[in-house]
Amino acid sequence: MPDPEVADELALPDLGAMRAAQARIAPHVHRTPVFSCHALDAEVGAELFFKAENLQRTGAFKARGASNAVFSLSEGDARQGVVTHSSGNHGAAVAYAAARRGIPAFVVMPETAPRVKQENVRRRGATIRFCAPTIEARDAACAAVQRETGAMLVHPFDDVRVIAGQGTVALELLEQSPGLDAIIAPVGGGGLLSGTSIAVKSSAAVIRVFGAEPANADDAARSFRSGRVEALPAATTIADGLRTTLSRRTLAAIRANVDAIGTASEAGIVRAMRMIWERMKIIVEPSAAVPFASLLEATLDVRGMRVGIIVSGGNVDLDRLPWQT
Amino acid sequence: MPDPEVADELALPDLGAMRAAQARIAPHVHRTPVFSCHALDAEVGAELFFKAENLQRTGAFKARGASNAVFSLSEGDARQGVVTHSSGNHGAAVAYAAARRGIPAFVVMPETAPRVKQENVRRRGATIRFCAPTIEARDAACAAVQRETGAMLVHPFDDVRVIAGQGTVALELLEQSPGLDAIIAPVGGGGLLSGTSIAVKSSAAVIRVFGAEPANADDAARSFRSGRVEALPAATTIADGLRTTLSRRTLAAIRANVDAIGTASEAGIVRAMRMIWERMKIIVEPSAAVPFASLLEATLDVRGMRVGIIVSGGNVDLDRLPWQT
Repeated sequence: MPDPEVADELALPDLGAMRAAQARIAPHVHRTPVFSCHALDAEVGAELFFKAENLQRTGAFKARGASNAVFSLSEGDARQGVVTHSSGNHGAAVAYAAARRGIPAFVVMPETAPRVKQENVRRRGATIRFCAPTIEARDAACAAVQRETGAMLVHPFDDVRVIAGQGTVALELLEQSPGLDAIIAPVGGGGLLSGTSIAVKSSAAVIRVFGAEPANADDAARSFRSGRVEALPAATTIADGLRTTLSRRTLAAIRANVDAIGTASEAGIVRAMRMIWERMKIIVEPSAAVPFASLLEATLDVRGMRVGIIVSGGNVDLDRLPWQT
Repeated sequence: MPDPEVADELALPDLGAMRAAQARIAPHVHRTPVFSCHALDAEVGAELFFKAENLQRTGAFKARGASNAVFSLSEGDARQGVVTHSSGNHGAAVAYAAARRGIPAFVVMPETAPRVKQENVRRRGATIRFCAPTIEARDAACAAVQRETGAMLVHPFDDVRVIAGQGTVALELLEQSPGLDAIIAPVGGGGLLSGTSIAVKSSAAVIRVFGAEPANADDAARSFRSGRVEALPAATTIADGLRTTLSRRTLAAIRANVDAIGTASEAGIVRAMRMIWERMKIIVEPSAAVPFASLLEATLDVRGMRVGIIVSGGNVDLDRLPWQT
């Protein structure tokens, strides 16, 4: 039996749910460090605090939301395992959390998913179910797994427990870097940005919250303005974690709590990613470089501010780097 | 007038000198974090604590020794500036420390030094003096700068102040990770390993201290056995920071305080570097991967131990990675 709040398709977590999530997932996730770098500060004329979720277990913040969802399940609901669809970081995160709880995990991914991503899920003990690379095939495969196995769905972002878990990044950052003027998170499906914005506005309403996304996938910025879930543009982006539209739930949270959404060009994302590698010496994936890229391109204006930046993940194919042609 | 202790060619710093160095350089260097990673622990059957000096200012531990030397100078000695020879991390570190003190820096480097390394020195405001790529030409150029300008020499490793500064890495690590059984540092000229071994054996003699170097540049292991400064083998190594022989001074410290020196193959260094990038999400240069590589190849046996590993630096040419052919 799904929790009624989980079943409510517009429910959102509050600060209390996020604090509960923080306690629930503490044994399973790292309290990641916050880095600063004068060279990068100088590039944008602000004081930047990089919350390094690339150093999180599984290499991305997704371990938080997935762990909160998996460890929120009752014994009875958990027994049959969990299922999700994601060829990226969320798939690995659900596999990780399920392995920690000792329950089965099923991850639906397109046959076309890169081998490195398949491996990342498989080595955590999850079962992969392949489907055709369409949304319809994906949803059908997910539903089939649920019917066959009784596994509970853990959606990548349209889930109140997942959003509560992602909000714990901001709770930590607020403790680690007092006196921030603004916090920026990348936005794809909006789980991280929803959680961040609720956590920040409930704790310290004066702090601005910004989203950042590729200009080539600016559906969140357009949805933010129109109030409807807008479709993704046809163009693709190197920021593979952000090729997703919002849900009605995440749009509602973002419209209520976010101050602005910036964008970054493809060249700007690559440049920002390389600067972070070169100057901060940490490995970040393209999606994680989008907030800093939006500052470099000044689509968000934070000059003179103390700004927290959520570095969402560090899972990159090291055989081919985006600045190598 | 050089300090008489600096002029003594076998003088070594003691724990007191290292604590003084720690206080002296505190405003100029980061207290770098220590990372752990279960996946890497599992590879070697030990509990590893990576002291991330790749996140140090200038991207390497060298900022410590250079800052200690530069800020140890009297007002009178400092006025004419400092000179060193190094196309690598030490050159940038001396340039950095001199800029912090507001004095001139001259860095002698071979005409053949890669442009990225020249840029790293120049953008910190130092003056480059080019020389032919031989040791004789380098020493002659250094001496000429000293004569012409009155600048004080800050040797990359054969300097009691530099060794004291490098020893502060281990002082911090001992505080940050209590209960270590062993500490491993890479060894080229031996400044870091000398400082580490003195710091550790003076603080907690029970902790083992190991060096690690490329099998292709195993002069330190051979010098350690023979008691003489042995020449570098003709073969080269990807670990460009470790292509240096010891000095009589560093050999004396290492013979007195180090328990063993391990080696790593070229393929092992590349494999270790890539594992650290992929699993820990931090950028380390080949030299910094040598200690972990020596554990993977079991030329040092630390199974079951709690082991501190000094990650020496993270300055890498991101256009060409060693695993890309």
